[in-house]
Amino acid sequence: MSNYFNFETLKFLLHDVHKLEDVLKAERFKDIDSDMINIFLDSVKDYCDKALYPVFREMDEKPAYFEDGKIHVHPIVGEVMIKFGEMGLIGGHFDEEYGGMQMPACAINSAYSIVSTANNNMSGYPGLTTGAAELITTFASQELKDTYIEKMITGQWAGTMCLTEPQAGSSLSDITTSASANEDGSYNIKGQKIFISGGDHEFTENFIHLLIGRIEGAPAGTKGISLFVVPKLKIEEDGSLVSNNVETIADFQKMGQRGYCTTHLGFGETGTTQGWLVGEENRGLKYMFQMMNTARISVGRDATACATAAYHASLQYAKERVQGRKIKESGKKDSSNDPVAIIEHADVRRMLMFQKSVSEGSLSLIQEAAAIHDKMEGASPDEKKDLHLLLELITPVAKTYPSEKGKEAVDKGVQILGGYGFCTDFVLQQYLRDVRIMSIYEGTTGIQSLDLLGRKIPMDGGKSVQLLVAEFTKEIKRAKAHGSLSEFADQLAGGMKTIESVLGKISGFAMKGEFEKYLADATPFMEMFSTLVIAWQWLKMANTAQDALSNNKLTYSTEFYESKIHTMKFFYKYELSRIEGIAKIFEHEEFLTIPTEKEFNF
Amino acid sequence: MSNYFNFETLKFLLHDVHKLEDVLKAERFKDIDSDMINIFLDSVKDYCDKALYPVFREMDEKPAYFEDGKIHVHPIVGEVMIKFGEMGLIGGHFDEEYGGMQMPACAINSAYSIVSTANNNMSGYPGLTTGAAELITTFASQELKDTYIEKMITGQWAGTMCLTEPQAGSSLSDITTSASANEDGSYNIKGQKIFISGGDHEFTENFIHLLIGRIEGAPAGTKGISLFVVPKLKIEEDGSLVSNNVETIADFQKMGQRGYCTTHLGFGETGTTQGWLVGEENRGLKYMFQMMNTARISVGRDATACATAAYHASLQYAKERVQGRKIKESGKKDSSNDPVAIIEHADVRRMLMFQKSVSEGSLSLIQEAAAIHDKMEGASPDEKKDLHLLLELITPVAKTYPSEKGKEAVDKGVQILGGYGFCTDFVLQQYLRDVRIMSIYEGTTGIQSLDLLGRKIPMDGGKSVQLLVAEFTKEIKRAKAHGSLSEFADQLAGGMKTIESVLGKISGFAMKGEFEKYLADATPFMEMFSTLVIAWQWLKMANTAQDALSNNKLTYSTEFYESKIHTMKFFYKYELSRIEGIAKIFEHEEFLTIPTEKEFNF
Repeated sequence: MSNYFNFETLKFLLHDVHKLEDVLKAERFKDIDSDMINIFLDSVKDYCDKALYPVFREMDEKPAYFEDGKIHVHPIVGEVMIKFGEMGLIGGHFDEEYGGMQMPACAINSAYSIVSTANNNMSGYPGLTTGAAELITTFASQELKDTYIEKMITGQWAGTMCLTEPQAGSSLSDITTSASANEDGSYNIKGQKIFISGGDHEFTENFIHLLIGRIEGAPAGTKGISLFVVPKLKIEEDGSLVSNNVETIADFQKMGQRGYCTTHLGFGETGTTQGWLVGEENRGLKYMFQMMNTARISVGRDATACATAAYHASLQYAKERVQGRKIKESGKKDSSNDPVAIIEHADVRRMLMFQKSVSEGSLSLIQEAAAIHDKMEGASPDEKKDLHLLLELITPVAKTYPSEKGKEAVDKGVQILGGYGFCTDFVLQQYLRDVRIMSIYEGTTGIQSLDLLGRKIPMDGGKSVQLLVAEFTKEIKRAKAHGSLSEFADQLAGGMKTIESVLGKISGFAMKGEFEKYLADATPFMEMFSTLVIAWQWLKMANTAQDALSNNKLTYSTEFYESKIHTMKFFYKYELSRIEGIAKIFEHEEFLTIPTEKEFNF
Repeated sequence: MSNYFNFETLKFLLHDVHKLEDVLKAERFKDIDSDMINIFLDSVKDYCDKALYPVFREMDEKPAYFEDGKIHVHPIVGEVMIKFGEMGLIGGHFDEEYGGMQMPACAINSAYSIVSTANNNMSGYPGLTTGAAELITTFASQELKDTYIEKMITGQWAGTMCLTEPQAGSSLSDITTSASANEDGSYNIKGQKIFISGGDHEFTENFIHLLIGRIEGAPAGTKGISLFVVPKLKIEEDGSLVSNNVETIADFQKMGQRGYCTTHLGFGETGTTQGWLVGEENRGLKYMFQMMNTARISVGRDATACATAAYHASLQYAKERVQGRKIKESGKKDSSNDPVAIIEHADVRRMLMFQKSVSEGSLSLIQEAAAIHDKMEGASPDEKKDLHLLLELITPVAKTYPSEKGKEAVDKGVQILGGYGFCTDFVLQQYLRDVRIMSIYEGTTGIQSLDLLGRKIPMDGGKSVQLLVAEFTKEIKRAKAHGSLSEFADQLAGGMKTIESVLGKISGFAMKGEFEKYLADATPFMEMFSTLVIAWQWLKMANTAQDALSNNKLTYSTEFYESKIHTMKFFYKYELSRIEGIAKIFEHEEFLTIPTEKEFNF
């Protein structure tokens, strides 16, 4: 029943590949050791097995819905908030002064990988609460901190992120929610927000919305956006809660993640809604990006989770389902032979290995991002700046690769089940519906690709790319030292050359000021670039596995390590190879997707 | 409302690209002319606009279901059967002696392209009836023809295809449904069949199941399979209908195509079920392949239909939705400028053009298959053999490319709508759920790929491939003659070389008798091969468009023709380029997906 996750792989990534023990050397983590984290993860896994995985299908079959002005969700949602508060899953990595345990991001992130794989409806409710509370601890006044943080990290109150408006989806410069200053320093907020994940339900006492809006008279565009704390219920001086006139207008009905409510909220439309400014005026979008960057990696993690859960479900089916026969030397199938489990067929095995390579490659990148985050603790200012640049470069990739390739991976899982995969009696179709949102959440793939090519790659004069290249080079050297992995080091180096040459070509347009051309194929560029980044992660895993085998320091079975190397080879053969085709797109001189005067007959 | 289909493109493909007028020269079609077919298609489109498109969403929201031993479907299903009977959509291409009009397949196929695009739940019910009736006219006795054909092609009775059994999905050699001979020449049938599309419902009087089973004592494997006609209700001598004990056990609940019932049937389990042998004993699978081949192309057509409908839905959204600004020369966006419709953004345009290139490229291939079928009429025996070989080679491609790339195309349609695409208020998510079945129906992509590489390519000593190469060469020559298309002729020729070289490499394994290796990567081979086949169709379309422009023989607007050429260029740049990456898969020497003695740790 709880066969949805490979715990050994998570531990291998955490301890061996991304070296948690090194991370823990920082002063901040002095009270934390490896054993504590293992025990913490065991307890999370245990809770997921017993409470979250068993309600996963039920939450889809009886989706969240809106009735009589209220949103109704599965009762587990309220339980989880409190339980996750107790377990440290909401505020475990916060400073002790805010009630946290100063746990490393690596650990929290690993825990959430288990949670989301068990039930991807569940990570958003506590996860956004963490993000909202972090914004308050980082940028808000002591008074706001004192009012909200404790209640939030204990899971008594939930947090949300209110950005999108009906008329402005990805285009945040066009938001119109307004804020007018009151004499007491608060603001009256007026406007509507849509697609607010976990925005309201009956099982949590209060909702603390971190909302962006415009203070009257603020400049147009993103430079006039401020950030506010807007509670659903205001806190009176005696601690009692009174309505702040935040109206729940609807719950969006979705094709997937139907246990995770997506709300439409109105502010200041049925009475006065008060909000409190976070930090300085007109700097709201900059602050919000802290939460968005974390949220982007969380989306990558949840996409990875869908791919992982689907992989294990289709793996189990492939091992049990007996059908068809092996192809004989003659090329025929001999019907007098016994049929075999379908995992014996090369085509099914290819689909399983694809799923494994996407699932584990993505998980490794998500862990890498968490490790970089943790390494900033105790780093020198220069090191910290470098780590920050590297993380900025990796973030859109960690969001996009798992979202895009996760869809393909789950699709292969459905395919393994054949007709049954399409039937609601089997879980695969649920993962397929769920994973579809990931390339839309927190900035679509198109937006992430523009971010990668337009902002992250040129950052600091190309420094972020240099830092990534240095990381790649480290793994190439390690692989060269293991003679058996040398050809894969060469393939990775070849891929780097390919992308360098594409970048060289398109940078020409940027230098000429032709930015529309520079960015026109940002998405195929992302496809190519992100495949290379995952290839780097696979080489890192293979190097680590080969180290263990060569030094005979085996925590897991020999097959475990050998199979990691095998999967790296699979990824290089079947996926990394493809970037050579994508690179050819950039050789064509004509820009076919940029509108011209000439009308195109769609 | 009825903006789901580009009728001009269909007519361009039918008349200009695939030259219906040439097809109609055959003696069989002497009573048919182009105008009749245009009027026929107009009336089909009109009915689709008024009756089928309006109930498309409703059929999803209130799916077919099983209750009290019966399957309940939308009432339109019964109406459509009779209406399609009247319009000639069930038996229009049958011989006049069976009540048909000897219409060409091109025309019927075009009509169904409209039907499926309007409502993909609806083509299967009449379509399988046609297929079942064709099996009877081709292989069954006069008595069976007299009993069934008329009632079937008028839509009074429905036909089905009963192959799959619970223990044997794609592996037909393992079916166990039994048939024991009675003295009157009939057989008693016993067994269960699953995934029977349109297998039962209340709005059609009788269901005529074309069922495969084993006559007692028949050889094991596919050589012991016979084909039977098994009516739900038996026809007494006085014409009255009595139960034949065909039990409806369940309706499979699916993630998509929820208006198209998928039944589980039991035969001979609650009483005697009689069946009548079609043709000779033990030749049933061979007969059934006639129906399966047609059905495979129909699945390709329906996948194309989903992609097409999704394309038009997202196109409309992209034209209307105003969001974001153009990227300026500076690389920045200026928020003082007015936002633009999202179709102005290169990334959105790329997704739309991808959809268009998949939708129209697939439709052209489906039309090609129908045209080849029609050309067999009045062809010499040698020509007929060649056309048959070519059709055999194209069939798995025409099934697979639209199914696999159709998924991607619909996915891009969802992406264009962003968060709204994921919401059930918008139709895109329905197309995404619907299209998912197409790569499973009638032999999965894995099965089609084995068929392509294992059977079709080696057919008749490679003759089928030679015939296809000759067709490619024809278009390459035409393109060379149009100087402006010359570089695309070169790219297609380059793609042919790439695939030839891959085939050369893997054929080595077949020659050494290592068939498991030869076939291990049949699916990536299919991906590459099918992309090349669609590239051929795009060059054919571009050549035809360029002819019209060069000769100034314009049936449609200049932009119409220019945009076809533009879309060909798009396909060559963004899709055909990719085969160079896929080809690299075959350069890796290690077979990573063939099981070995060594255990793999999944």
